[in-house]
Amino acid sequence: MIVTLSQGAEVDSVRRELAGLGLWVSSVERSQKGDVHIVVGRGSTAVDPSLIEKVRGVSSVSAPSSAHPLVDAHTASVDVGGYKIGPETPALIAGPCSVESEDQILRIARAIAPHGVRFLRGGAFKPRTSPYAFQGHGRQALSWLRRAADATGMKVVTEVLSEQDVGAVAEHADLLQIGSRNMHNYALLKAVGRTTKPVLLKRSMAATVEEWLLAGEYLLNHGSRSVLFCERGIRTFDDTTRNLLDLGAVALLAHVHGLPVVVDPSHATGRRDLVRPLARAAFAAGAAAVMVEVHDDPAHAESDGPQALSPSDLASIAKSAFSSEAA
Amino acid sequence: MIVTLSQGAEVDSVRRELAGLGLWVSSVERSQKGDVHIVVGRGSTAVDPSLIEKVRGVSSVSAPSSAHPLVDAHTASVDVGGYKIGPETPALIAGPCSVESEDQILRIARAIAPHGVRFLRGGAFKPRTSPYAFQGHGRQALSWLRRAADATGMKVVTEVLSEQDVGAVAEHADLLQIGSRNMHNYALLKAVGRTTKPVLLKRSMAATVEEWLLAGEYLLNHGSRSVLFCERGIRTFDDTTRNLLDLGAVALLAHVHGLPVVVDPSHATGRRDLVRPLARAAFAAGAAAVMVEVHDDPAHAESDGPQALSPSDLASIAKSAFSSEAA
Amino acid sequence: MIVTLSQGAEVDSVRRELAGLGLWVSSVERSQKGDVHIVVGRGSTAVDPSLIEKVRGVSSVSAPSSAHPLVDAHTASVDVGGYKIGPETPALIAGPCSVESEDQILRIARAIAPHGVRFLRGGAFKPRTSPYAFQGHGRQALSWLRRAADATGMKVVTEVLSEQDVGAVAEHADLLQIGSRNMHNYALLKAVGRTTKPVLLKRSMAATVEEWLLAGEYLLNHGSRSVLFCERGIRTFDDTTRNLLDLGAVALLAHVHGLPVVVDPSHATGRRDLVRPLARAAFAAGAAAVMVEVHDDPAHAESDGPQALSPSDLASIAKSAFSSEAA
Amino acid sequence: MIVTLSQGAEVDSVRRELAGLGLWVSSVERSQKGDVHIVVGRGSTAVDPSLIEKVRGVSSVSAPSSAHPLVDAHTASVDVGGYKIGPETPALIAGPCSVESEDQILRIARAIAPHGVRFLRGGAFKPRTSPYAFQGHGRQALSWLRRAADATGMKVVTEVLSEQDVGAVAEHADLLQIGSRNMHNYALLKAVGRTTKPVLLKRSMAATVEEWLLAGEYLLNHGSRSVLFCERGIRTFDDTTRNLLDLGAVALLAHVHGLPVVVDPSHATGRRDLVRPLARAAFAAGAAAVMVEVHDDPAHAESDGPQALSPSDLASIAKSAFSSEAA
Repeated sequence: MIVTLSQGAEVDSVRRELAGLGLWVSSVERSQKGDVHIVVGRGSTAVDPSLIEKVRGVSSVSAPSSAHPLVDAHTASVDVGGYKIGPETPALIAGPCSVESEDQILRIARAIAPHGVRFLRGGAFKPRTSPYAFQGHGRQALSWLRRAADATGMKVVTEVLSEQDVGAVAEHADLLQIGSRNMHNYALLKAVGRTTKPVLLKRSMAATVEEWLLAGEYLLNHGSRSVLFCERGIRTFDDTTRNLLDLGAVALLAHVHGLPVVVDPSHATGRRDLVRPLARAAFAAGAAAVMVEVHDDPAHAESDGPQALSPSDLASIAKSAFSSEAA
Repeated sequence: MIVTLSQGAEVDSVRRELAGLGLWVSSVERSQKGDVHIVVGRGSTAVDPSLIEKVRGVSSVSAPSSAHPLVDAHTASVDVGGYKIGPETPALIAGPCSVESEDQILRIARAIAPHGVRFLRGGAFKPRTSPYAFQGHGRQALSWLRRAADATGMKVVTEVLSEQDVGAVAEHADLLQIGSRNMHNYALLKAVGRTTKPVLLKRSMAATVEEWLLAGEYLLNHGSRSVLFCERGIRTFDDTTRNLLDLGAVALLAHVHGLPVVVDPSHATGRRDLVRPLARAAFAAGAAAVMVEVHDDPAHAESDGPQALSPSDLASIAKSAFSSEAA
Repeated sequence: MIVTLSQGAEVDSVRRELAGLGLWVSSVERSQKGDVHIVVGRGSTAVDPSLIEKVRGVSSVSAPSSAHPLVDAHTASVDVGGYKIGPETPALIAGPCSVESEDQILRIARAIAPHGVRFLRGGAFKPRTSPYAFQGHGRQALSWLRRAADATGMKVVTEVLSEQDVGAVAEHADLLQIGSRNMHNYALLKAVGRTTKPVLLKRSMAATVEEWLLAGEYLLNHGSRSVLFCERGIRTFDDTTRNLLDLGAVALLAHVHGLPVVVDPSHATGRRDLVRPLARAAFAAGAAAVMVEVHDDPAHAESDGPQALSPSDLASIAKSAFSSEAA
Repeated sequence: MIVTLSQGAEVDSVRRELAGLGLWVSSVERSQKGDVHIVVGRGSTAVDPSLIEKVRGVSSVSAPSSAHPLVDAHTASVDVGGYKIGPETPALIAGPCSVESEDQILRIARAIAPHGVRFLRGGAFKPRTSPYAFQGHGRQALSWLRRAADATGMKVVTEVLSEQDVGAVAEHADLLQIGSRNMHNYALLKAVGRTTKPVLLKRSMAATVEEWLLAGEYLLNHGSRSVLFCERGIRTFDDTTRNLLDLGAVALLAHVHGLPVVVDPSHATGRRDLVRPLARAAFAAGAAAVMVEVHDDPAHAESDGPQALSPSDLASIAKSAFSSEAA
């Protein structure tokens, strides 16, 4: 945002008034002709330009047009398979990292459904850093997942990795997940958009908030009905947690942009001992849903066992989610 | 942590059992003699080595001795000027960025005390990126701050920047603040330690958790009675908030290390519109205290007006802090 | 790497000997039984384990098996369409960001070929952060590029974004580029690998060196004949350059791993005024090739004009590349 | 920089012309009155505003006044104890991490002087992350260092950590070093500035270029005669090198800001096997000097042995530094 001053305005006085409104001055720029412009930093409190125009000494306020109009028009609450997810209707998404067998996914589904979990997650296609690691049971796992969800009254959330699998995944899932490694995979975003299905869009490990919103714009522009933005931790320099959970971005999307946000504390920290407090903090920051990994036998999980909760650990997270106070 | 396997143990089976306990395998290493060691990653769930020794196939478990024994022995709750700060006794620290006049600090102190704030913060010495920016009213501001706190039954929290001011600050403050820019200033840590007073130690913008704990060890080793670890956001690549609030580190220090943690959502985000949800999230993650900037006339603040709350905004934060549920 | 000590060995003496060899001690770990292990940090000088075994007090040295055996076996020099790229045969890859018309690409090809450029780059498919930005002229641009290269005796380097375009791109290009946004797009890596063609693999904005090597392993494991690793800047907190060029990683891949490395100083900095010194620094650090954007009319470029050089600017870069001293 | 358009100007045409000059458009902002401003991103090629004013459709160009006028006026070449350091007179600074004894420093000084090293570095006061690590031999080491330098015709470079030692260090050193951990320690910057001596200012691990320049402004504003800016690697997410050497910032300071830059490849990578290529790359990028750690018996160094070179390794670095081609 650029605030242009009137001839003869007192710069310091305008600066202070802007500060009083919650705006950071990123620079004061002058032309040879004597025009004075104040550039407002992006990390400022969101303020209506019309309020700024009323400040004494301000001649005009210029703002960029949004680069993501469809995201801006998106609602805070969305419908996924008949269930609402939004600030007034917090949700839990739970399930194993990988779908390992029809029996496993059904057993876990039955264990978590009683805790109020309405969205069953599980990986059929797994993005793995190593070509030699287990890559998921693929298309057959989609059917197992669908049947387990149907048997327990849940909806299916699962990741799609390849343009070629979009059709099969869309056929079985209620909510298609784009993983953090594919947030910038525009070919996949377009293909998933064309299915029109709701999408859970994970933030890339190093995406700015603006890039994340623009990835959502790709989906909406190509047909997606709705997008849930999922924060799963970004990459940084500390190794005591696997990633750094950015709850500031969650609060920003929820409270300033009015978008539905999902938080994945399992991937964000990788530590079972931190999932519970961070799930609770996620709801406090404005998340509409929390997604956690649950396994009934983590010592035999095919992937990501260390971060998985037991079904019974879900109880306390469900309490944070569904206590009246959380809304 | 290194897990050494017994002769003939099945590596994959041990790996899975470790995963089941919440441990990430960072590497499996073999010697020419045939010894097999599994290195457990630092970002793993905290698990007692004796539990690991019981896993079939494990011959021995080696662990490093801690580099910060005094921090490890520190209590989760501390006494500052007669008031407790700890998980059972959440606290609010509030006040202006800079102490601007005796009248200003007294006026703000009177406005915030009724909300349950027992710790009055305010800068007498200000660390400023530019040599031309306002550097604080110095020693006289210390007296103003002390009198305002005394008049309202509060305790004084203020930053010390120079070894030469340590004596004066210690004389007026109940809790000495080391700012994020000085977390690695070992000469200052030693001087502050020698006063024996409680210290609020802000994490440096790019400090690992281990470095932050070691800075605390410097303080305790040189005499500090107690240290409160304050998370105020770390530096990263996004500019929609000024810094990135690391609530994962807060949960880690509070729940795994059992330390008293303070969160400063004002500096962490720089945005007035995000302070409230993040203060609430901070308590949910395990913070013992939240520190916020409050100004009764942000348009005339001498520094950091954009992130300051009004005294009345404190009410809702006080509610998160002092509701029975938060503890 | 884990160095296990003999019974009764003097730990400090072994530590010092390891330091003398260029190894950082990341931790010293002890079991209850009295075993002592020294963990060597990953950022240590590469040292043959057999040298370490000779240190007095060392009982055995354990090392992980490599996660990327095919990358480890890769040569430092590769053949692309009959031309060698390697430390002894430095190369320049140049061309416009986007292929805009048959005329444009031919004109630029003719302007750069005389400077010793043997690889013509140009985007037919462009990965764009915004869905509303120009996405490239697609398949027809591939033919334009091919004809321009053939007419000037150059080889074609171009990016592929979608699994569905892999066939078409492989038909027209000599070297297939995987962009930084797709380094983690495993479906694309597999499809490109199956063409067996040489690949230029850009490092993702936040990829560790290990993840980058593993992405190379995906390619080789699925069939790629050879991989050139391209450093194009990583994401960090400073905004005076668009990205941060990691020449340390370039030196590591070239000198320690013996791999062919390409550096893209245009994308790394985004600044025309820094391309020349950084191209020169890249060769000094060990790069086998430098890739730069060149446009003959940057004021009318369809993308990335600000970082493009003019054909005549190439002369000085060609001098750094092809002076005998650079090899 | 803000480019304000004339009434009726064609925005896209101006954008393209700006791109043609090497400028990135960060946003296009419009006021309700119809004013159109183009904000130019900071990571753009440096272009004289008067050139921009000539673009058709541009009404005026506004630019911020510099926040560091003294740094802007600084010369590219400086005198340290009678020796010049600058782009035409490249220099080597070498010596051990810690000064361990009078004998050790003299022995090393004698071994390195013949290679053209004119600046002897060595730590008397060591900033250590742990309070239990060796902190240097203090004031007596200053005398040892001075005598060794005098005996070999070299100048002394050494770090000062505490305001209280500034006098003693200034008395013995020709060039006072501010370490990366103290770049934001404004009390120390002021005290060092007051000595008027030349300063080697290391960049903090997470400092933006602007903050680094502002720390230089502190020094100059408080009296320093000259400042050498030392890049020693910044903190990031990869662990194959200890830090990430930012040669883009080196090129920027040298070629755009016209400042004398020193590069410390030893601390930047921590790896002996990468020091040589990166020293060479540093000079290619525009460094006026390279600083390396040298020890004649790294297995008995009191600190940082793994990154130290032997005196004979210096020969090849000296060759890069002093070959006519490097200037």
